[in-house]
Amino acid sequence: MYNYPKTLEDLINSFSLLPGVGKKTAERYAFSVINNFREEEIEELISNLENLKNLHSCPSCGSLTDSDLCSVCSDDTRNHRLVMVVEDVKDLFAMEKLKDYNGIYHVLHGAISFSKGVSVDDLNIDSLMTKAANDQVDEVILATNATLEGETTARYLKELLNDYPNIKVSRIAYGLPVGSALVYADEMTLLKALEGRREYK
Amino acid sequence: MYNYPKTLEDLINSFSLLPGVGKKTAERYAFSVINNFREEEIEELISNLENLKNLHSCPSCGSLTDSDLCSVCSDDTRNHRLVMVVEDVKDLFAMEKLKDYNGIYHVLHGAISFSKGVSVDDLNIDSLMTKAANDQVDEVILATNATLEGETTARYLKELLNDYPNIKVSRIAYGLPVGSALVYADEMTLLKALEGRREYK
Repeated sequence: MYNYPKTLEDLINSFSLLPGVGKKTAERYAFSVINNFREEEIEELISNLENLKNLHSCPSCGSLTDSDLCSVCSDDTRNHRLVMVVEDVKDLFAMEKLKDYNGIYHVLHGAISFSKGVSVDDLNIDSLMTKAANDQVDEVILATNATLEGETTARYLKELLNDYPNIKVSRIAYGLPVGSALVYADEMTLLKALEGRREYK
Repeated sequence: MYNYPKTLEDLINSFSLLPGVGKKTAERYAFSVINNFREEEIEELISNLENLKNLHSCPSCGSLTDSDLCSVCSDDTRNHRLVMVVEDVKDLFAMEKLKDYNGIYHVLHGAISFSKGVSVDDLNIDSLMTKAANDQVDEVILATNATLEGETTARYLKELLNDYPNIKVSRIAYGLPVGSALVYADEMTLLKALEGRREYK
């Protein structure tokens, strides 16, 4: 029985580790690298992977950065007393794409989950509470996901922040996604949308 | 406006070069490497990419190999006088998965295509004709694709091989794919299936 040359087989196995990539797709990627990538493109991919070791958590907010502080925390034009708490770095990037938010972030790296065994000790909470204790925060926006885990985490943080009555704590709104039809919304969303109704002017 | 750290952006751009991978998927892959790959898995991916420079064409058949001859050409148990001509290395691997064919291969690295500007000079044909001239071949199976390009290429090779009347030249069969319904077959396939009918015993 014939096998791929080991070099090729190894690369296919590496690509198979990517999310949603099975054997067939991994083969396609490997052949594409062999046949279609220019030599310098392969070198670039290699050095880009090697450079990943320069990426680390921003000590202030927990976001990803390759310098001392992340580009949000090192930006003096932003309001550092307004802190949005998100579960994941990806949430931060999604929010930043809006180009609307001018505060800073705090990345928890997860949410409290009993089923996944994630407890508060696994989350990046300390540096947020330090900022709160040092009176560096006016408002905390809890922007964890609208899931059981996100809600539990938001609730837990709210309890902690109750110790600082000067800090306003808000939660992003639940409701119908823009562009969606009421008829397709699930019951929980409808309930929350009704609960969160506001005067229509 | 906030951007990804450059290290991350670069990796996303590299992944975007893979076939069928857009920005979103490339982001997903990059985050997966950062969050889910173990350190040694990243190192492996890097070294597997670096090892690609060891891959080269088998001087005998044109297949991919990381040693002198490919594993088919260096296999003495195979019939080296039976040569299957395929367009691409991937075709060879597809055929090998059958575990049924015991001859060797010849990889053209393409097919004659007027629209893509591929001429006979771009194809790996010489080493096949050398084998034919040196009386090293009993039969050539033309297994190029059932496309205009594949058919043109098969026709061209047949002309060249006419100089060697001792060599049997065959073409893989056209017809209905196994498991398919007649009603869904295109006209050309039906025509070819009719043309290629054989006595039913």
